[in-house]
Amino acid sequence: MRSHEDGRTASQIPEVVVMRLPLYARALAVLEKESQEVVSSNELAARLQVTPAQIRKDLSYFGRFGKQGRGYNVGHLLSHIRRILGLDRQWSMALVGVGRLGRALLHYGAFAAEGFKLVAAFDSDRRQIGTQIDGVVIQSMEELSSTIRTREVNICIIAVPALKAQEVIDMVVQCGVRAILNYAPIACRVPGDVCIREIDPICALQSMTFHLKVPRINR
Amino acid sequence: MRSHEDGRTASQIPEVVVMRLPLYARALAVLEKESQEVVSSNELAARLQVTPAQIRKDLSYFGRFGKQGRGYNVGHLLSHIRRILGLDRQWSMALVGVGRLGRALLHYGAFAAEGFKLVAAFDSDRRQIGTQIDGVVIQSMEELSSTIRTREVNICIIAVPALKAQEVIDMVVQCGVRAILNYAPIACRVPGDVCIREIDPICALQSMTFHLKVPRINR
Repeated sequence: MRSHEDGRTASQIPEVVVMRLPLYARALAVLEKESQEVVSSNELAARLQVTPAQIRKDLSYFGRFGKQGRGYNVGHLLSHIRRILGLDRQWSMALVGVGRLGRALLHYGAFAAEGFKLVAAFDSDRRQIGTQIDGVVIQSMEELSSTIRTREVNICIIAVPALKAQEVIDMVVQCGVRAILNYAPIACRVPGDVCIREIDPICALQSMTFHLKVPRINR
Repeated sequence: MRSHEDGRTASQIPEVVVMRLPLYARALAVLEKESQEVVSSNELAARLQVTPAQIRKDLSYFGRFGKQGRGYNVGHLLSHIRRILGLDRQWSMALVGVGRLGRALLHYGAFAAEGFKLVAAFDSDRRQIGTQIDGVVIQSMEELSSTIRTREVNICIIAVPALKAQEVIDMVVQCGVRAILNYAPIACRVPGDVCIREIDPICALQSMTFHLKVPRINR
C-alpha cells in the first residue's frame, strides 16, 4: 500500500481503517495532554495493542505523516486525524427511547465533551413527555420529524425495545438522518447511504464465550 | 477457503468470523420462531446485510452445513452455532461499577435471557454497598476477589470511570477472569490470553462522522 498525497474519496478507505482512527486519536490526545511532542509508530502501537506496521499502513491512506525514523508530531497528527474524521466541528444528536438505557445516555457527559451534543429526545410514553433530563425536554414521537429538521440533527441514537427498532429507524432515515447509533439488539436494514453502528453487548459476550469454552467442532 | 470436516482450534478462526457468528445465530433464532425449517445463504444474507458468499465462507470454517442448492436446516445450524460459541450453557458475570450505566445494565433483561447471569456487582461508593438491584446485592471492592472465585464468575463487565478502568481490569484479570466487557472509554491493556470487547459509543460516533462529512484530505 503506497502513500497517497492526493485525497481519496471516503468510499475508497476500508471501513476497518476508519474504525481504528478514533482509537489513534484517543491515544494521541492522551500523549498531547502529557506534553509529548513526538511519537513513534512503535510506541503508539504498544499503547493500542496493534502492530506498528498496521498504524503506518492505516495512516498511509490519508497522506504522508512523520519522517522516516523520526516519528510523528503528536499535535499535527492528532489535528489531522480529527479533521479526517470530521471531529473539528460539533454534531447534533437526537435520542429515541428514554427508558433506563436512554436516561443513562442522556446523563453521559462524554458525548458533549467530544463534540456530540444531544439536542433532542423522544419517547412514546405519555408520562415522560414534557419532562426534562439534563436540559433536554422529552418530546412525543409525533414531534420527531419536525424537530429533526429544525434542530438539524445529524445523528440519531436508537434506544427503543427491539420490536420497535426497525420502525423507528425507518422513521429517522425518512427524516434524512444518515448516521445511526443503534442500541436495540436487532439486525436492522438501512439504505446504502446510511451509516449505522450497533452497540450490542450480547453479541460481544457471545463472541467471547467462543474463546472461553474451546468448543468441540463437528459434534 | 475449503470446508473442513476436522475441527480447527479456536486460534485458527479469524476473529471477524467469530464476531459474525452471534449475528447468524440471532437471525436463525428469528427464523426458528417463525417456524421456517430451511434457509438459503441468499435469504440469510439479505436479512443481515452481508453477502451469501461471506456466510458460506464463514461457516466453512466449522464444517459442512446444508446441501448444495438445498439451503441450511435452520434448527440444526442454529444449535450448531450455539454449540460453537458456547451458548449451550449458562455463564456467570460480575459487574464492576454501579453508576447510572451500571444500574441500567443490572436492569437489562436480555443478559439473563441469553444465558448470561449477573451474579455479583461491586462499587467503591460506601452508600451503595449492601443495597440491592434486581436481586443483586452491591458489594465492596474488597470483596471482589473472593466473590469472583466463590461464585465462579466467567466474565466481568467494567462500568467504572475511565480513570479507574485499567486498575479494575488488572484486578479482575488477577482473579483469573479471562473475558471482559469494557464500557470505559480507554485503550486498556490485558494479557494475551484474556479476551476483551469494548462497548464504545464515542468511537462508533467518531467513525460515522467520517462518512457524514466527506473530508478534504491533505489540507
